[in-house]
Amino acid sequence: MRIIVVGATGTIGKAVARLLSTEHEVVRVAFRSGDFRVDMSQKESIELMFRDAGEFDALVCAAGVARFGSLAELTDDDFQTGLTGKLMGQVNLVRVGMHFIRDHGSFTLTSGVLSHQPMPGSSSISMINAGLEGFVRAAALELPRGIRINVVSPPWVKETLEALDMDSSAGMPAQDVAQAYWASIHGARSGLVINARDFT
Amino acid sequence: MRIIVVGATGTIGKAVARLLSTEHEVVRVAFRSGDFRVDMSQKESIELMFRDAGEFDALVCAAGVARFGSLAELTDDDFQTGLTGKLMGQVNLVRVGMHFIRDHGSFTLTSGVLSHQPMPGSSSISMINAGLEGFVRAAALELPRGIRINVVSPPWVKETLEALDMDSSAGMPAQDVAQAYWASIHGARSGLVINARDFT
Ligand SMILES: NC(=O)c1ccc[n+]([C@@H]2O[C@H](COP(=O)([O-])OP(=O)(O)OC[C@H]3O[C@@H](n4cnc5c(N)ncnc54)[C@H](OP(=O)(O)O)[C@@H]3O)[C@@H](O)[C@H]2O)c1
Ligand SMILES: NC(=O)c1ccc[n+]([C@@H]2O[C@H](COP(=O)([O-])OP(=O)(O)OC[C@H]3O[C@@H](n4cnc5c(N)ncnc54)[C@H](OP(=O)(O)O)[C@@H]3O)[C@@H](O)[C@H]2O)c1
Repeated sequence: MRIIVVGATGTIGKAVARLLSTEHEVVRVAFRSGDFRVDMSQKESIELMFRDAGEFDALVCAAGVARFGSLAELTDDDFQTGLTGKLMGQVNLVRVGMHFIRDHGSFTLTSGVLSHQPMPGSSSISMINAGLEGFVRAAALELPRGIRINVVSPPWVKETLEALDMDSSAGMPAQDVAQAYWASIHGARSGLVINARDFT
Repeated sequence: MRIIVVGATGTIGKAVARLLSTEHEVVRVAFRSGDFRVDMSQKESIELMFRDAGEFDALVCAAGVARFGSLAELTDDDFQTGLTGKLMGQVNLVRVGMHFIRDHGSFTLTSGVLSHQPMPGSSSISMINAGLEGFVRAAALELPRGIRINVVSPPWVKETLEALDMDSSAGMPAQDVAQAYWASIHGARSGLVINARDFT
């Protein structure tokens, strides 16, 4: 398969690209580097990326920015960043990419544990992640030509917690999280929220 | 209690206002009429409405527009309408209203069955409804002064199906849906997605 990984330079995306490249051709896409570059918060940039990248069998998105902050302090702009960057960014990768992906291809997006296990400060991120999951459940009913779509919900990643100088003992290594993306691509099901914890 | 009902002229809101007024003072708010008017897609309009309406013990929102349409045909504008009108509209009623609501007050928002039981054409609405549910789960952890928040998920309403000339035999009468809002306001729990079907 030829697989596009958006966010291929990130903590999760790097591990996904490494795992997938053991058996597939991986096209690495990111914001500042990669085989192709995209700003997924801009629909025109997404259209250009797909035009340049050519046909593909699967797309993984492990990118998307949303802001953490208390409900009283999150600004309109903080909410908008998540809506544009993480929610509509991923939705638009599907809306545009569905015209470029091969028959029986698959999309695998990324939400996150905060969708269903919120914490103080996560109101915008929890909204974004849950919204993505609702979108994926519905879009799966409509994608043509045998195309599938799932969303992986990662827990806190070990490397991320380490980078933030937080207790990383409960974090999941990125290479383990990558297994959930592998399962989405190689499985037959669609419309799933895949809890990455189920793959260890 | 003094209870603000946003969308009080709508199919669900009218039934909620009628039920609540048996025991409480209801302040009816809508887009074109009511005791106060608001355009919930505009944050400035929300701020003015709260300033005018004065203190309150509970707010119900049974308003918010999102567009139905196939994934291939929904436009950027269709998605934006739901994000601005139904998702951020309700989120902003909470973000602004939390500074006006009395201690131990409650917010009750409205999502919908399409969040978890999608149908072809619901990708934007399913995204919006699920996003609201994620927001409510998280916001409940942070609201100060004993303030609670829940979201009611109504099934298809009988009166709505009748108005659309669709088979209404499985629809739920608006006056039954209103019971879920009553339960949210009079209960003690917070952060819940309340399935209106659980109240018949
Ligand atoms: N890490 C965790 O603990 C965790 C847990 C749950 C969910 N998640 C979610 O998983 C996703 C990936 O997280 P991560 O920690 O792996 O992220 P990360 O390490 O910060 O990497 C982000 C990746 O996204 C790319 N990117 C940034 N802005 C972009 C844009 N506008 N358009 C396209 N690509 C862009 C970056 O490219 P450049 O390097 O070129 O900037 C990079 O490849 C995020 O949505 C995050 O919310 C992460
Ligand atoms: N009815 C159903 O079967 C059903 C099922 C599941 C979920 N829901 C959800 O429940 C909510 C209410 O549905 P409904 O069928 O009762 O709606 P409706 O009959 O169409 O009534 C809409 C209400 O919202 C008000 N409104 C419209 N635009 C507004 C704006 N920009 N700012 C503030 N208020 C505005 C309207 O006021 P004006 O009259 O002044 O315009 C009216 O009071 C919606 O979010 C809907 O998605 C409905």
